[in-house]
Order: sequence, then structure tokens, then C-alpha cells
Amino acid sequence: MVDKSHIKHFCSIVGEENVKSDKAHLIAYCYDATRDRFEPDAVVFPRDEQEVSDILKYCNEHKIVIVPRGAGSGFTGGALPASGGIILSLERHMNQLLEIDMQNMVAVVQPGLVNMSLQKAAEEVGLFYPPDPASEEYSTLGGNVSENAGGMRAAKYGITKDYVMALRAVLPNGDIIQAGKKTIKDVAGYNIAGILTASEGTLAVITEITLKLIPKPKHKQTYMGIFPDVTSAMNAVFKSLASGANPVAMEFLDSLVIKALKQKLGVNLPESAGAVLVGDVDGNLTDEVKFQLETLEVSFKENGATDFIIARDETHAKELWYARRNASPSITIYGNKKLNEDISVPRSKLPIALEKIYAIGDKYGLTVPCFGHSGDGNIHVNVMVKDKNDPKQLEDGHKAIEEIFKLVVDMGGTLSGEHGIGTAKAAYMNIAFSEAEMNLFKNIKKAFDPNNILNPNKMGL
Amino acid sequence: MVDKSHIKHFCSIVGEENVKSDKAHLIAYCYDATRDRFEPDAVVFPRDEQEVSDILKYCNEHKIVIVPRGAGSGFTGGALPASGGIILSLERHMNQLLEIDMQNMVAVVQPGLVNMSLQKAAEEVGLFYPPDPASEEYSTLGGNVSENAGGMRAAKYGITKDYVMALRAVLPNGDIIQAGKKTIKDVAGYNIAGILTASEGTLAVITEITLKLIPKPKHKQTYMGIFPDVTSAMNAVFKSLASGANPVAMEFLDSLVIKALKQKLGVNLPESAGAVLVGDVDGNLTDEVKFQLETLEVSFKENGATDFIIARDETHAKELWYARRNASPSITIYGNKKLNEDISVPRSKLPIALEKIYAIGDKYGLTVPCFGHSGDGNIHVNVMVKDKNDPKQLEDGHKAIEEIFKLVVDMGGTLSGEHGIGTAKAAYMNIAFSEAEMNLFKNIKKAFDPNNILNPNKMGL
Repeated sequence: MVDKSHIKHFCSIVGEENVKSDKAHLIAYCYDATRDRFEPDAVVFPRDEQEVSDILKYCNEHKIVIVPRGAGSGFTGGALPASGGIILSLERHMNQLLEIDMQNMVAVVQPGLVNMSLQKAAEEVGLFYPPDPASEEYSTLGGNVSENAGGMRAAKYGITKDYVMALRAVLPNGDIIQAGKKTIKDVAGYNIAGILTASEGTLAVITEITLKLIPKPKHKQTYMGIFPDVTSAMNAVFKSLASGANPVAMEFLDSLVIKALKQKLGVNLPESAGAVLVGDVDGNLTDEVKFQLETLEVSFKENGATDFIIARDETHAKELWYARRNASPSITIYGNKKLNEDISVPRSKLPIALEKIYAIGDKYGLTVPCFGHSGDGNIHVNVMVKDKNDPKQLEDGHKAIEEIFKLVVDMGGTLSGEHGIGTAKAAYMNIAFSEAEMNLFKNIKKAFDPNNILNPNKMGL
Repeated sequence: MVDKSHIKHFCSIVGEENVKSDKAHLIAYCYDATRDRFEPDAVVFPRDEQEVSDILKYCNEHKIVIVPRGAGSGFTGGALPASGGIILSLERHMNQLLEIDMQNMVAVVQPGLVNMSLQKAAEEVGLFYPPDPASEEYSTLGGNVSENAGGMRAAKYGITKDYVMALRAVLPNGDIIQAGKKTIKDVAGYNIAGILTASEGTLAVITEITLKLIPKPKHKQTYMGIFPDVTSAMNAVFKSLASGANPVAMEFLDSLVIKALKQKLGVNLPESAGAVLVGDVDGNLTDEVKFQLETLEVSFKENGATDFIIARDETHAKELWYARRNASPSITIYGNKKLNEDISVPRSKLPIALEKIYAIGDKYGLTVPCFGHSGDGNIHVNVMVKDKNDPKQLEDGHKAIEEIFKLVVDMGGTLSGEHGIGTAKAAYMNIAFSEAEMNLFKNIKKAFDPNNILNPNKMGL
């Protein structure tokens, strides 16, 4: 437990104004995008890396649990103080864009910088930071790295880990380390930046991030394919990509989502639409964009598409994207509790995976609308519970989720494509990992954090 | 030490014909591409993953040192049994291409498969495996992953780590693990595949590799830029790339290499050439290739290029590449001992880095021809010792190398862009890493290998 002497010591490190333990602050820092709530014992706002080091060193000596936090927008409890302790909040002071190095096409940022701030700063100088999680307007880059955030553009441009060149971080014992360089190639020493990415704040506190930028493609165009059913759309996904198409995004809506969009938001989609694929293509030449659109159209129609729409202009593009962007809020017509899991399978398995996911829903009498990043095999599966106050329905929902996870892992897929494990999926880790693999995770955790003070008891560890 | 009872036990696992301890075999497995020689106590050729597991389990129980080995073509001693023990040779039996999954654009291979075999198999079905280390004709993919091999195409396509989707591996205690999936996104659990890549066979024995493939670009063209001096060429490197050019390769030859090529091999290069950049551009449309060439030509000429040559045909392209491909053998005119280091700096630092590297050479009266992968900042720096039998010259060579490493690290660069650390660079790790960072490496090594049996005493650990 954190007592007054500890609070006093934190004040001596960061200043009184940067330590909060009043009820309002404890409540303000008790949540994330899950519905779980855990109040910390205190919230500490370090002003720089040295202060982070001093805090960790003290916590390590006094065995005080510490949970690093950015915007608290995660979906799996990664930033929740589920075992108590203090919140180390990096979004108040350590939120600066330190450098955009145009000569090397690299950005150096502090962990509390919001994703969109970097995207905008890069665009202003003709560069591009592709990872665009749905939370891009408020999630921080420290959180993005810690969860290895994905997004819509992963089909062509990959995910956060593909852009992390180097990290500075503080180990639980207070040691400050540099991992990686501002160089494309670096094979000296173990790949620490690689293992810190996606480690959910359990191994070290990231204090500085060096990210790769790329030249901004000059042209972009939005497309939409209309399919009679989910299976034909899912076949079109992997067949079009294997045929050489390289779209920025290829997002998917199933018939339940389409119905919800029409019913709740009056979205205008063709009567015949049993499934939709929507996305962008880009390139430096208009001919490249044209080539991409032609490749997609041919492949979509070979796989049963009844229509292939190309946006006439920016406004039309926004209209086409509107359906995808509102998929999540629309499906509340099916229930007041959404069990949303971001499973991922090899793309060729999407048709059969979705067929079986719907069958699991049917078995429990639950509606399971699905949408998401089909271009990279990552689908948001939403098990809808009509009435969350009915324990039977809720229990069935969780049973369905467990069956879906088992199915996905059997198909060579993963529990999480982008949201992470945290507390929310910790109970399912044994579905995906053997005892040997879990033991290895535990040994790695111990190598970084022998006293288990840093974001403990997450990820099933 | 390995005694007769151990040999007998290995025979019981893999069969007598797959355990060798005769002098001929010990000599055959004592070398790599360094000039160092260390004879193992025995060579064992496992036939499958279970045998690898049985061998490791036994070695762990009996504290027998074990060194995994592919083709033994490494430049830094990674596969050398520098502390004795047995060689676990994966190139005899575990060398199969298990699958090319065209639907998901993924290859699954055993660690002993030669890089070029995969490249060819991928090309036959219209796909592309970009990493192309100079050893591509004989180095194995297990070795490529363990060293995180680079190559000429890294400027556009990245390096081995960018293609590793999943690994199967055996831990020192014999546990078999799976790390990663055949999915683009996977954020469940720690990124074990990430830390095994570039770990130089010190953490686990890789038994299966899942690699990303991409569609083979339809068109390719070779270019060469002629520059009056190294500084203008190095400026052209980072300025052309920052201006949006995205060449597959941008390779560099300095004036010493050019002189050696002319003198030793009669290579035809312009009288005025003080430095050369040579490479390929590619794309799915001829217009993309044209756009890339135009972008390069404009930027090269803005930075002082006196000539920009575009290959007329395949034969001409081979002629242009001939100079680069023969850089390494040509420079032996400068001495009979080559201290070849593969340093890497942020690209914008190349002009000043090279200037200072030549100055270090001058200080010791040593010729330092440089060439390599300038497009990704990775340069092969060759400190030439005229007479390797003169201890003073050799000592000066090593002093120069140490100064070069210090310079490079001060400039934000790395000891090794692609060769690794192994035994050859172990003594220099303290230049690049703090005590805290080295301690972390040691703790990670211990987490995987508490008995320190797997390729011990490498990487300065």
C-alpha cells in the first residue's frame, strides 16, 4: 500500500502539484475503454525521464506497484491499476514532439504525444506516419507502442511495430536504457525495442520513441465493393491481395452491420448488399492508383461482387467511409452489451472463420455482427448481449467468446490483432499459449522486473 | 567436456550416422567467414524438432555447451564453438521448404534452407522474398534470422526482421515453443519472435520459420550515378530519398574502390568518377519505374552528379552491377589483411562520417576503402593492413577500428548493420552499450538459458 511517507517522497521528486491522491483524481484515473474500474492509490505526473527513473527506483525499493498510463483509451485494461498502486501518467508533461528529422525521415516523440498530432506534423512536411488506430484522435504514441496498435492502413503499411526504430525506457530498477538507433539496420545486442513493443507496460516505462516516417503518397482514391454475402466478400479479400492488389485499407462490413447502419443511421447502401468491402488505394502517380483500382475491380467481380464503386470526389469518399466509421455505434440495436473481440486469422481462413463464428452465435441465440480490417485478417467480432442484466445471456456471451477464441487459435489465428491482452483477455491466454510459452513469458517478465512492481498481473502473468 | 557417454546418448537420439567426432568433421565445422578456428567436441545432425528438443534437454541437464549452426558463413563468429561443446548442425536434415502459401503470401521453411532456394521458389509463383545478403547463394534462413541479415534491397524492402512472421524454436531446457502466427497482426503475449531475431543463436534453437512474401514487382531498371567525390554522392543519398525516391537499392563505391576495380579488374568507369551510386528501381508499371529514375536523376544532378546512366538492357545492367559486386575482391590491392566492419549511421550523417573515417585511416597511415548499402546508411568500412605479418600495422588497424566504432556510436550509429557481434565485435560492446543495457542483455540471456549452455560467451555476454 501507498502511505503518506511514499506520497511525500513522490512530491519531493516531481513537485507537490504533480502528485494527486484526492478522490476526484483517483476516479479520473480509474478507467479505460473497458467497463472495468480500479482506483489507484495516487497519480504521479513525472516531468522528465530522470523523474521517471527516480520514481521507479523508489517504487522498486519499496515494492510499490506502478502502472504507466497514456490516454487510458485501451480496450483491454492495460493501463488499469488492477492490483492497486500508483498511476504514472505520461500525458501531462511528457507529450512533446521532439523532432521531425526530414533528412532521415524519422520522428522523435515523447510517449504522451497523441497519435494524430504526429500524423499532422508529418503531413505538414510531406511525410507520413501510417499507423491509425481508431483512437488516433486521443490515444498516445506511448500507448500505441505498448499495445502495438494497428489501424485501417495496416493492409499496406503495417502496424506500430513496423515504425518503431528506437526507444528510450526506464527499467523497474530505475536504469535508463536506449534500445535501437535512428538507423534502418542495427543488429548489435538483443532487440529490446522489439520486445518492449506490445509488452503492455509490463517490462519498462517508455520515455522516448523514434519512429520511421515515409514519403506521403501523392494520390489517394476510395473504393467500395458490394457483395451478395460474406463468403464472397471474404474470398475477394485474400484473392485480390494474392493477385497483386496492394490497397491501403480493405475494410469489411457484414450483413448485420449493414442492416444496423440502415436502420439506425439511415445509411444509403444497395438493397442487394450482403457484405461490403471499403478502402483506399494510393500511389505517387495517378496511373498507379488506376492500376490498383482496376486490379481490385477485376478480382472483386470474379468473386461475385455485384457493384464496384469509385469515389467521384472527396465528399463521395467520405460518404463511402461513413458506413465503416459508424459500424461500431450502429450495432447497439442488437443489444445493450457488446463483447467486442479483435481476433485475427490468416486471410485465406476468413470465409470459413466467419461462417463458424456465426454458427457459434446461433448456438447461443446471440447476434454476432462482424466488421473490421479484413485486408490484414483482423476482424472485430461483436457478441451482442440483448440484456446485460440477464446473467444467463451474459454467461452465454462469454461462453460464445471462449468458443470463438478456441476456433480462431485452431485456425492459426490470435486472441488479439491489436487490442492486447491486459486484464480483459488474461483468462484466455491458456487457449493460445502452452505452459512452456507462458513460463517463458514469466521468465522474461522477471528478467526485467524481478520485484513485479510494473503493471503486475496483466497478460495472464 | 563431452565424453563417450554423452556421444553415445546423442547417437541414441539421432542415430549413429548423425553424430560425428572424427578429426575431419571437427575441422570441417571449426570455421566461419572470420579467420578464427575453434574445433567442437562433436557435431550432431538432428533430423527433426523433437530430436533438437531431446538434445537440448540432455545438454541442459549435463551442462554441455551447444552451438547451433547453419552454413557457417557468418562474419562475426556466431556459429563458432568458441567455448567448445557440440555443434548442432541444421543444414543436413532440417533444410526443407515446407510450404509456400500463395493465398496468404507466406513461406514456411526449416532453418537449414538456403536463402536463394526460397527466393527462387517464391519467384516461380510470382512472389518475392526481398532479403538478399551477399551470402544468399549459401547462407541459410536460420542463420539469416539469427543474425537479422540485411542485403542490397534493404533501402526499399527492409531486412530479415521485417519478414519474420512466426518462429518455432526449442528453448535450452528442451521446451518447444511457437512464437507468432501466420497473421499480419498478433499482439497476444510478448514478441518472442522479435527478440529471437538477431539473437545470434544464444537464446533458443530456431526449428521453423514463417516468412512474409510480397507480390513480385513486374518491372525493374538499373541506374548508376557518377559523382566527382564522396561527399556529393553521400549528400545525394539522403537528399534523393528524402525527396520521395524509393529505390530498391542504392549502393556506394568510393574513389579507392573505383581505383582498385580499374587496376585489378579493368572495370570501365568514367575517368571523372570520384564516387559511384548504383542500384535498381522497380514497380508494377513502367511509369512508376520511369518516375523513380527521373526523381533520382534530378536529385543526383542537383547534388553534383556528372552523369546518370540508365541500363539499356539486361547485359548493360549486369555491367553496371559488376563494379559493385566485385568491390570486395578488388580492394586486396591495398593489403593482405582486411579489417571489414559494417557500421551504420543515420543516412544524413554519411557525408561527415566518411570524411572522419578517412581521417582516422590517414592518422594511422592506413588505406580505408569504403563501399556498401548507402541507401540504408550501412557502409562496409575496410581498414586495409598492407602486411598482416607486421604486428605494428595490425595493431594500428585494430586501433583505427576502435576509433571508427567510437565515432559511429557518437553519431547515433551502430557497431553492426548486418553482420552481428558474435566473437568478432564482442570487445567493442562497451562502446555501444551502457552497463545498464549490458546487464539487461545478461538478464534476458539468463531468462532463456539459466545454465548458459547455448552459444555462450558471445555478444560480450
